[in-house]
Amino acid sequence: MTELKIAADVIAAENEKRSKALTSDYAALGENLSRRGVDIGAITQKVSEFFVAVPSWGVGTGGTRFARFPGEGEPRGIFDKLDDCAVIHQLTRATPTVSLHIPWDKTDPKDLVAKAQELGLGFDAMNSNTFSDAPDQKHSYKYGSLSHTDAATRAQAVEHNIECIEIGNAIGSKALTVWIGDGSNFPGQSNFTRQFERYLSSMADIYKALPDDWRMFSEHKMYEPAFYSTVVQDWGTNYLIAQTLGEKAFCLVDLGHHAPNTNIEMIVARLIQFKKLGGFHFNDSKYGDDDLDAGSIEPYRLFLVFNELVDAEARGVKGFHPAHMIDQSHNVTDPIESLISSANEIRRAYAQALLVDRAALAGFQDGNDAMMATDTLKRAYRSDVEPILAEARRRAGGAIDPIATYRASGYRKRVAAERPACVGGSGGIV
Amino acid sequence: MTELKIAADVIAAENEKRSKALTSDYAALGENLSRRGVDIGAITQKVSEFFVAVPSWGVGTGGTRFARFPGEGEPRGIFDKLDDCAVIHQLTRATPTVSLHIPWDKTDPKDLVAKAQELGLGFDAMNSNTFSDAPDQKHSYKYGSLSHTDAATRAQAVEHNIECIEIGNAIGSKALTVWIGDGSNFPGQSNFTRQFERYLSSMADIYKALPDDWRMFSEHKMYEPAFYSTVVQDWGTNYLIAQTLGEKAFCLVDLGHHAPNTNIEMIVARLIQFKKLGGFHFNDSKYGDDDLDAGSIEPYRLFLVFNELVDAEARGVKGFHPAHMIDQSHNVTDPIESLISSANEIRRAYAQALLVDRAALAGFQDGNDAMMATDTLKRAYRSDVEPILAEARRRAGGAIDPIATYRASGYRKRVAAERPACVGGSGGIV
Amino acid sequence: MTELKIAADVIAAENEKRSKALTSDYAALGENLSRRGVDIGAITQKVSEFFVAVPSWGVGTGGTRFARFPGEGEPRGIFDKLDDCAVIHQLTRATPTVSLHIPWDKTDPKDLVAKAQELGLGFDAMNSNTFSDAPDQKHSYKYGSLSHTDAATRAQAVEHNIECIEIGNAIGSKALTVWIGDGSNFPGQSNFTRQFERYLSSMADIYKALPDDWRMFSEHKMYEPAFYSTVVQDWGTNYLIAQTLGEKAFCLVDLGHHAPNTNIEMIVARLIQFKKLGGFHFNDSKYGDDDLDAGSIEPYRLFLVFNELVDAEARGVKGFHPAHMIDQSHNVTDPIESLISSANEIRRAYAQALLVDRAALAGFQDGNDAMMATDTLKRAYRSDVEPILAEARRRAGGAIDPIATYRASGYRKRVAAERPACVGGSGGIV
Amino acid sequence: MTELKIAADVIAAENEKRSKALTSDYAALGENLSRRGVDIGAITQKVSEFFVAVPSWGVGTGGTRFARFPGEGEPRGIFDKLDDCAVIHQLTRATPTVSLHIPWDKTDPKDLVAKAQELGLGFDAMNSNTFSDAPDQKHSYKYGSLSHTDAATRAQAVEHNIECIEIGNAIGSKALTVWIGDGSNFPGQSNFTRQFERYLSSMADIYKALPDDWRMFSEHKMYEPAFYSTVVQDWGTNYLIAQTLGEKAFCLVDLGHHAPNTNIEMIVARLIQFKKLGGFHFNDSKYGDDDLDAGSIEPYRLFLVFNELVDAEARGVKGFHPAHMIDQSHNVTDPIESLISSANEIRRAYAQALLVDRAALAGFQDGNDAMMATDTLKRAYRSDVEPILAEARRRAGGAIDPIATYRASGYRKRVAAERPACVGGSGGIV
Repeated sequence: MTELKIAADVIAAENEKRSKALTSDYAALGENLSRRGVDIGAITQKVSEFFVAVPSWGVGTGGTRFARFPGEGEPRGIFDKLDDCAVIHQLTRATPTVSLHIPWDKTDPKDLVAKAQELGLGFDAMNSNTFSDAPDQKHSYKYGSLSHTDAATRAQAVEHNIECIEIGNAIGSKALTVWIGDGSNFPGQSNFTRQFERYLSSMADIYKALPDDWRMFSEHKMYEPAFYSTVVQDWGTNYLIAQTLGEKAFCLVDLGHHAPNTNIEMIVARLIQFKKLGGFHFNDSKYGDDDLDAGSIEPYRLFLVFNELVDAEARGVKGFHPAHMIDQSHNVTDPIESLISSANEIRRAYAQALLVDRAALAGFQDGNDAMMATDTLKRAYRSDVEPILAEARRRAGGAIDPIATYRASGYRKRVAAERPACVGGSGGIV
Repeated sequence: MTELKIAADVIAAENEKRSKALTSDYAALGENLSRRGVDIGAITQKVSEFFVAVPSWGVGTGGTRFARFPGEGEPRGIFDKLDDCAVIHQLTRATPTVSLHIPWDKTDPKDLVAKAQELGLGFDAMNSNTFSDAPDQKHSYKYGSLSHTDAATRAQAVEHNIECIEIGNAIGSKALTVWIGDGSNFPGQSNFTRQFERYLSSMADIYKALPDDWRMFSEHKMYEPAFYSTVVQDWGTNYLIAQTLGEKAFCLVDLGHHAPNTNIEMIVARLIQFKKLGGFHFNDSKYGDDDLDAGSIEPYRLFLVFNELVDAEARGVKGFHPAHMIDQSHNVTDPIESLISSANEIRRAYAQALLVDRAALAGFQDGNDAMMATDTLKRAYRSDVEPILAEARRRAGGAIDPIATYRASGYRKRVAAERPACVGGSGGIV
Repeated sequence: MTELKIAADVIAAENEKRSKALTSDYAALGENLSRRGVDIGAITQKVSEFFVAVPSWGVGTGGTRFARFPGEGEPRGIFDKLDDCAVIHQLTRATPTVSLHIPWDKTDPKDLVAKAQELGLGFDAMNSNTFSDAPDQKHSYKYGSLSHTDAATRAQAVEHNIECIEIGNAIGSKALTVWIGDGSNFPGQSNFTRQFERYLSSMADIYKALPDDWRMFSEHKMYEPAFYSTVVQDWGTNYLIAQTLGEKAFCLVDLGHHAPNTNIEMIVARLIQFKKLGGFHFNDSKYGDDDLDAGSIEPYRLFLVFNELVDAEARGVKGFHPAHMIDQSHNVTDPIESLISSANEIRRAYAQALLVDRAALAGFQDGNDAMMATDTLKRAYRSDVEPILAEARRRAGGAIDPIATYRASGYRKRVAAERPACVGGSGGIV
Repeated sequence: MTELKIAADVIAAENEKRSKALTSDYAALGENLSRRGVDIGAITQKVSEFFVAVPSWGVGTGGTRFARFPGEGEPRGIFDKLDDCAVIHQLTRATPTVSLHIPWDKTDPKDLVAKAQELGLGFDAMNSNTFSDAPDQKHSYKYGSLSHTDAATRAQAVEHNIECIEIGNAIGSKALTVWIGDGSNFPGQSNFTRQFERYLSSMADIYKALPDDWRMFSEHKMYEPAFYSTVVQDWGTNYLIAQTLGEKAFCLVDLGHHAPNTNIEMIVARLIQFKKLGGFHFNDSKYGDDDLDAGSIEPYRLFLVFNELVDAEARGVKGFHPAHMIDQSHNVTDPIESLISSANEIRRAYAQALLVDRAALAGFQDGNDAMMATDTLKRAYRSDVEPILAEARRRAGGAIDPIATYRASGYRKRVAAERPACVGGSGGIV
C-alpha cells in the first residue's frame, strides 16, 4: 500500500470546501462545451490519463551563477527528493514518475525501486551529467566531455552515460537523456567539425549500450554554459545526431533552449514529421534558459506546442509517443508548489488543445481563412478549463486546489524540522 | 573585344595617383607576412582568383515597406543593369558574373548572352520570384506559392521555376535559387506539416526539371514577409529539404536570415560537414534581414564565415565549391558603390582567412589553449590586407581605389542623363 | 441620425441566434465571479466604456517590402475608409474614433466632420508622415526629415506637422503623433548627437504650434526603415524627448517596436511613474514590427500591459489618461475583420485585468509570495470573459458575434462592387 | 620601489626577440599614417596615457551556474589578487588600478594601501555586493536588496554600500558602483512601481553618504539573476536613476547587459549628450551577459563605442571623464592572460578610433555621403595598430608581447606551487 505523504483527511477536508463550486463550474462548462459539440467527460478522461515526469533535481531550490538562496526543508538526498515528488503526485495525480540525475541520485537501485514502490512512483528518463566535475573524477570536463579533444576524457564521459543506462535498466527506466555543456567561449577555440565528429563518435559508443526497448534523447541548447558556440546548438544539429545514430535516437526539446523569437511549435511539427521528436523538457523563458515555471511567461506558446501534439495524435502519426518531462529551476518559490503549478499548466495546455475543433480548423486552413483559423485556436485557448483539471484530480483522489491543500497540510514545516538547513552558496544549479 | 564602361585612361590616371603608396604598403606588408612565414604573392594570387556574383536587382535602389527613394540614373531594365554590373567588374575585377531575377530580367536569352559577351560578363544562379504577383498572373501568391493549398497555384509556381531553369540553361547558368515568402501570419493559419509536405512535393517537381550539371539552392529565412511562421524558416528545415530532394539540392545561406545571436559560422561548418552547403547570399545585418552591405556591421563575423570556407578548402573537403553571391538592398547609397565596396569586403575576409596559421591553430585547439587559438584568428583578422586587395586589382587591370575611380569617371552622371528619373513610391505598407 | 452601414435587422437576426447561449454563459460567469467577490455588472459597465481608436490606414490591405496583395473592395480614399471604420464601430461599439494619416487623408476638414457625424464617428490623434516622399514635395526625406542635415528639409517636415495640427484642430482631434523613420544604415553615416540635437530642435518648433489642450506623442522604434541606427530608438530616448519638450509631450508605446525579449509592461510602468505615458499603438509581434493583430501572438503580454494600466487607474495616478490606438498591417485578412477582432482582444485584456484581485495581489507582493502573486494574475487572465465582452456589445446595440455578423451582412461584397479593384504591387524592394 | 612580480630580465629578453620586427613595423605604419596626415608619435603618446581598471574578481577563474572549473594557482584572497593584477600592469602598462569587491576583498584598508603601493597599483571604483548572502548576514537578499519589500533588509543593503564608500575612501577610491540583482521571476511577483520607488529611496540614502569628490555609478542589466523583470533593466531606467539622485550620479554601461541587437554605441552617445555617462564595464558577449574577453566576439562594436568616446573628447564635452573598467568571467583561460588580452583590445579600439579623420567624417555626414562616411570609420578600424600598442608598452617598460612574456616568466607555475589547489564546484561567479 502506498505511503501517503499528505494525510488523506487533509485532502478530503480541503476538497470539501471547494466541492460545490467545482460541481457548479464543471456543469456550466459542460453545457457550454456541449453547445460546441464537445463532450466534457471525454476531455476529462483524456486529461486524467496525461502525465508528466518531474525531475529529481527540481524539488531542490535552484540558483544562478550569482547565488543560490536555499529554502526550508531542502531534500538531503534522493530519498528525501522522492518523498517530495510523492507529494506532488498525490495532490495532482499528474506526475507518477521521476527523472533521476546521476551522479547526484546514485544509490543502490534496489533501494530506489523499493522506495518508489512505497510511494507509488516510477522512474522516467535517466539524466547523465558531464557538465560539471564530480569530486572523484579522473579527467576534468573543463574543456568538454563527449566532444573533448582527449580520448580518455571522452571515454570517461561515455562510461558515465553507460552507467546511467545500467542504473536506469535496474529501476525500470526506458530512456537516457544526454545534455552536455560542450562548446567554446572564443572563436577558434574549437574546430566545429572535428568537435562534432568526436561528439558523434562518443554518442555512437553510448548508443551501442542502449537496450533494445530504450530510447536515447539528445537535447539541443543555443548557449550556456558555453558562450561562443555549443556543440548541439539547435534542432538542426540535433536532428543530424538522431539521424546519424539510428532509430532509437530522438531529439529532446527544452522550451528555453532556443534563439530569441524562435517559433518553437514549428520545430516540434518538423521533428514529428521526420519521426525524431523524442519529447520535452517543459519550462518557460523570457530571455534565455531561464528555467521558469511552465506556462508562467507565454502560456499561449505552451498551448501552441500542445496543439501540435494533439494534432499529431489526431492524425494518428505512427510511433508517436513523446516523453513529457519538466526541467525547471525554482529560485524564489517552494519547489513543490512550482512543480504542482507546472504540472497543472501543462495539463491545462493539453486540455485546451483537445478543445480545438480540428475539422473546422482544417477547413479554414484549406480555404485560407486566416481569421477563422486563428480564432478556432483562440476559442479553445480562452476556454477556462480549470474545472476539467480540478475534476480530473478530484476523481483520481487528488486535490481540487493542490497548492492550497499542500499549504494546509503543513508538509514543508514538517520536513523543515527533520532536514537540517542548507548552507547557501555563491551559485549553482544543483 | 570587351566594351569598356569606364574609359581605360581614367583608371590609369587614378591608379597613377596611388601607385607609389601601394607599392610601398605592399612591400611593408610582404615583409611583415614573410616574418610570419606567409608568401604575400601566393595570397595575392588566390585573392585574384576569388569571385563573387552580383545580383541584377542590386544595381537598382532598394526600399523598405515604408518607402523607396530612387537615385539618379536608375537602370531601366536588364540591359542597363548589365551595364552597371560591368562597371563593378571592370573596377574590382572580382565580379565577373551576374545573377538574374525572373520575371524582371526576362528577355530573349540570345540578347542576354550577346550583351553579356560584349561586356565580358557571364551569368550565375537564376532566381525565381513567387513572393509577389506579376501583372499577368493567373493565380495569386497572396496565400503562398510552392506550398499553397491550391494545386493550380502550386503548379503555376512550379512552372515559373522550370521556366527560370530553361532561361538559365540558354544563357549558361548552372544553378537555380529558390526563395519563397510562404508562411503564415497567424497561429493556425496553416498546418505546418501539410504545408511543408506540399512544399516538398512542389520542389520535387522542379528538381525533376533540373539538368544533370545544375545545382538547386533552397534558401532559409526566419521571417518576413510572413510574420508568424515561414515554411523554410531555418537551416534545419533547409537541410531536410536538400536531403529529401537529392544530391543536386543544396542549402543557401543568407547572412541576414537568422534568429538574433545565431552563430552563423557554425551553421556553415555543419552544412559543409554534411555535404549540403550550396553557397551564400552575402550581406550584413544588425536587426533582421536588413540587407546591408557585406562587412558593414559585423566584419569579424564575415571573417569567421570565411575562416570555415578556407578551413574546408584546406582540409580538401570533396565536392566543396560553394556559390558566392551578393544579395543586398541599397537604400541610401549609389548601388554601384555599395556593390564595389561589398565585393572588396568579401575578398578582404577571404584574404584575412587565408592568413590564418592553420597548423598552429590546430595545435592550440588540440591543447585547449583557447587564448592562443583565438589569438591566431585575431592576428590574421587584424592584418590590414588592403594592399593585397589593391594589388590584385591593379594586376588584373582594375582600380587601386575603385570607388574613387568610379566617382572620377562620371559614370553616374552620364547614365542619369540617358535614363529618365524614376518615380519614388510609398512602399508596400501604404 | 447615424447612417448605418450594416442593416439593423441583420444584427438583430444574428444576435437572436446567439442570445440564449450568451445569457446562459453570462449568468454562469456571473455566478463564478460573485464567488470571487466580483460584480459582473460593474465589470461589464467598465468594459462598455472602454474605447480604442482605429487607424484610417488600417482598413486598407497592408503589405511588406516584397509585395502588397490587395483585397476586394479596397477603400479608394478617406471617405471609403470612414465607411469601413463605421462598420467596425457599429458591430463592436468599441471604436468610436478614427486616427487620420496626412497627407493620405487630407481633404476639406468640413467634409471630414460632416462625414464623421453622419457615421457617428469622431477623430483621434493626427498622424504626420515624413517617412516617404509625397509626389509634390520639394525636399526629399531620403536622408531624414526632422533630423535631416539640411535646414530647409527640416523646416518642410516641421511645416507638415504643423499642418497636421491645423487639420486636426479643425476636426476635433486633440493630439499629434510623430513617428519618423530617420536614422542611418551605416556606422558613421550620421553623428548620433548632432542628429538628435537637430531632431529635438525641430520637435520644439512643432511643439510651439501645439494648442494648449493638445498632447504631442513621440513614438520610439528600434529599427526599420533605418537598419543601423534610429533616432528615436527606444523608450529611453523617447523619455528624453518628452522631458525636453515640456508637459504636453508624451511617449507613445507601440507593442512591436522593441528589442527581442523586452519586458514591455515594465516600460509602461516606468512611463506612468514618470508621468510620460501618452498612449499606445496596439498590435502584436513575434519578430520585429510585424504589425500583427493585437493579442494574436502573445495574449498574456497584452494582459500584462493592461494590468499596469488598471493598476495605475486603481492607484488613482494623477493626469493618467493614455490614448488607445490600433496600428496594424492586415496583409492576409479582411482588414475590417482584423480590426474588429483586435478591438475585442484589447477589451478582453482590459476585462481580464479588471478581474485581478488587487488587494490580494499587494499582500502577496509584500510577503514575497511569488507563487500566489503570479497565480492571482493567472486566475484573472484565464477567466473566459467573452460573455462580458459580448454582453457589453449587445447592450450597446452591437453584435454578439461581430465577425459572423459582418460576414452575414455582405458588406464586403457590396463595396467590392462599388470600388474598382486595386492594382497590387511589388513592395518597396523591387 | 615597486616590487616586480616578473623579473625585469625576462621582459628584456623577450622584448629583445621582437624588437627589430617592431621597429620595422612601427616605421612602416608611421609612413602609411603620415600619408594620411596622422602623426604616429602623437597617437602612441595618447595610447600610452589610456588606462583601464582591472577587477579584483577577474583574476580568479569564473564559472557558470552549472560549474566552476578552477585553474592552477588561484588567488586565495585580496593580496594574491593584487599580486596577479600587478603582473598584468607590469606587462601591459595599461592597468594601474584595481577595482575591489566587498565583502570578498574586505580587509584593513591600511594593509590594502601598503600592498598596493608596494606593487605600484592604485584603486578604482568600489563594488558592493547584495546579489548573494554573506555568511554572517542578518537579512537574506533572496527577494531583493535595495528594493526589498522589507525596510530592515533595505537598510542592511544601504549600510553595506555605505561601508563600501568608507573602505574606498580610506584607500583612495573615488567612485561606488552599484549593481543589484533585484527583480522578479514571475509576472505579478513585484509591483514594478513600488519596487522602483523603494530602490530610488535606498539609493538616495546611499547617495547622501557619498563624499563630494566621489561619483556613484548605477549599472543596468536586462536580466539575470532575475528572469522576468529586473529593477534597473535598461539605460532608460538607469538615466531616470541618475537624474533623480543628483549630479554625482551617473550611468555605467556594461557591454553585455543589453537586449539582443541593441545599438550600444548609440546609448553611449545619448548618455554623453545628457551628461550621465559614468563609465564602462568592458567585456564582450554573443548571447547574454556572457562576460567574454573584450573584443573577442564583435571587435567592430568595441571600436564604435570608442569612436563615440573619442568624438566626445574631440568635441570637448564638458565634464567628460568616463571610468574604464573591465568586468569579465574567465572560465576557460588563465585569467591573467585574458585580462592582458582585454586591456590590449581596449587600447586597440581606442587607437583605431584616434585614427578616424573626424573633419572628413563630419563633411561626409553633412553631405549624406553614407558610403564615404562609413569608409572613413572602416579605414581607421582596419589599420593594424598593433605596432602602436606594442611601442607604447615598450616605451613604458612593458612587454612587446605580454602574453608570450608572461608564459616565459613561469609566474603561473610559481604561484601554483605556493597557492593550494581550489576545490571545484557546482557553479558561482565568485
